[in-house]
Amino acid sequence: MTVSPVVLIGAGLVGASIGCALTEEGQQVHLRDLSSSHARVAAGLGAGTVDEPVAADVRLVVVAVPPAALAEVIAGALRDYPNATVTDVGSVKAGVLHRLWESVGDRAVLERYVGSHPMAGSQRTGPVTARADLFVDRTWVITPHRRSGEAGIAAVRELVKLCRAREVVLDVEEHDAAVARVSHLPHLMSVLMAGRLTEVEPEQLQLAGQGLRDVTRIAGSDPELWQQIVGANAHALLPELRAVQLRLDDLISAVETAQQTPGRTDGVRTELERGLAGTRRIPGKHGSAPRDDAQLVVEIPDSPGALGRLFAEIGEAGVNVEDIAIEHDQVREVGYLTLAVQPTLADGLVATMRDRGWEIRQARSEV
Amino acid sequence: MTVSPVVLIGAGLVGASIGCALTEEGQQVHLRDLSSSHARVAAGLGAGTVDEPVAADVRLVVVAVPPAALAEVIAGALRDYPNATVTDVGSVKAGVLHRLWESVGDRAVLERYVGSHPMAGSQRTGPVTARADLFVDRTWVITPHRRSGEAGIAAVRELVKLCRAREVVLDVEEHDAAVARVSHLPHLMSVLMAGRLTEVEPEQLQLAGQGLRDVTRIAGSDPELWQQIVGANAHALLPELRAVQLRLDDLISAVETAQQTPGRTDGVRTELERGLAGTRRIPGKHGSAPRDDAQLVVEIPDSPGALGRLFAEIGEAGVNVEDIAIEHDQVREVGYLTLAVQPTLADGLVATMRDRGWEIRQARSEV
Repeated sequence: MTVSPVVLIGAGLVGASIGCALTEEGQQVHLRDLSSSHARVAAGLGAGTVDEPVAADVRLVVVAVPPAALAEVIAGALRDYPNATVTDVGSVKAGVLHRLWESVGDRAVLERYVGSHPMAGSQRTGPVTARADLFVDRTWVITPHRRSGEAGIAAVRELVKLCRAREVVLDVEEHDAAVARVSHLPHLMSVLMAGRLTEVEPEQLQLAGQGLRDVTRIAGSDPELWQQIVGANAHALLPELRAVQLRLDDLISAVETAQQTPGRTDGVRTELERGLAGTRRIPGKHGSAPRDDAQLVVEIPDSPGALGRLFAEIGEAGVNVEDIAIEHDQVREVGYLTLAVQPTLADGLVATMRDRGWEIRQARSEV
Repeated sequence: MTVSPVVLIGAGLVGASIGCALTEEGQQVHLRDLSSSHARVAAGLGAGTVDEPVAADVRLVVVAVPPAALAEVIAGALRDYPNATVTDVGSVKAGVLHRLWESVGDRAVLERYVGSHPMAGSQRTGPVTARADLFVDRTWVITPHRRSGEAGIAAVRELVKLCRAREVVLDVEEHDAAVARVSHLPHLMSVLMAGRLTEVEPEQLQLAGQGLRDVTRIAGSDPELWQQIVGANAHALLPELRAVQLRLDDLISAVETAQQTPGRTDGVRTELERGLAGTRRIPGKHGSAPRDDAQLVVEIPDSPGALGRLFAEIGEAGVNVEDIAIEHDQVREVGYLTLAVQPTLADGLVATMRDRGWEIRQARSEV
């Protein structure tokens, strides 16, 4: 099957990567971008051509522009390409649909709109890093609305297939609720915690450890983009934020009880246990169930070559490293590397690495 | 100067490591632990002896037991060793002091108590991984109270010096406020977020990414220990939690506004900007100011030896890796490794690594 010719509006990483994937599969792709240099860079990378198509021939339009511009660009595409299915790759769906519903005079036209959302592993801006295989085996959510036509849904399914992604069909509200919970809420929790640091004295921050860094990492992301995402998903985010608000009230009551009656910390324990249970529900790597890897801690000198030597010797030992994290000592020129390995391999690896002169130990519970 | 003979109560990682450090410096250390096997293991590692000292000769007692037991064990030590300075290594100070104040009949005795808190890089349980150099160049906070005697303070400063840690003196309230802000509050924010996941459907969790994993990582820690820590620092934690509660109210109002009036997201932007500003206040590695490293993303096959080859070749290129993070593809057998390097070295490294066949790219802004 074919969806050719395709028009791609927005030649950033996601758009240009779709262009590369479709071009590889023999589809004709026409690139459009407000920045003509973006479109030209994407074309140079094999994402398609900057030539204009014959509008009436276009079968599929993929809109890959920032969240705030989506509704307008989609409406424009429905007008400009009267025979095309139009989809988008936005990370929030309901608001866009609502605005289309209000702004598009002839609602029958909306039969040709079917939203979608590829969960690309890393969303970086700009076409320079585009890759045809960005979506291979990634989840790509298709979000038909109640007026989406069968032909349009089929075209978007074909798009997902051509990009070799894994198709998941959710309705618009289900999708927005899912990303509100597992992506947008964690982002705002990180922002709340990081925001509190603006009122902390520098001396106090000297006591900061890896935990604080982990919790606040994503709060360092681009506020411009997140302003659009949060604005677009306000509807689905509000119940999540209010649920956290209630839970925070409970937690504060529990801590107040602990303060008033020393030893009465069972309420606090309940919250901590719930948190632990929540972490265990997050799927592990490769989509598998969470697993208890053994954690090994190695001291590594902070110099070129040290990590290379370390991993070369781990490789020689035939052990696959499942996960990795580094913590730098604030003062000494060393880092502590935590390696996750299969539990059955841990003891042997510790012995081998010690023989080779590494400071290595099995980690127990972590505070 | 000497603090010998020393009694160490609690032969876990922190206690046994103090024993090793003091023994190396020629101090006589006597180990006590509720678990006699813990004490023997620690002695076997060079942390001291399990023999009883002459109680009246003891100059310094270091109490390294779980938070809930601290006050009682300190009070016991003040009784048992009538001429000794008594310190502890607990992560919360005011509650313990308060309980001592209430429980110790003869308050003059409290002259001999001076609290302290070594910020060991990784707090793992059990003596097996004890190391004499655990505290080298780490911050070790000394928290005298208003009745602490000069001789006691001098003895604890000597302890810190013998362990080669960096002495910081804070009063009890300052210390507890600092750890509430930079350690205990982030922990509870992580717990709140992770707790919310207990109500999320498994299909929704399939959309989870690295951001969620980072924010919830520390919520996977031991609830037993954190129950004690939160209970002990309830007083300092409450204002932090209430500040977050107010900020969350503001955030919810801002998101409500964004929902009611699409486009009115300036309130949301304010919160996002505050979060970004907060992340920039966290000190970088080696206690230096935060720095903008260049971020490179490399695709690595998920097989033994791949990381070894990668780091060996980075080492040959003479580039020091400042930080490292790994993200596993949920389905494909590859990982994406993010490397932070000095910005001036990034372009050269990318070129070199590409020549050697690695898929490597410079990351832009991250969502």
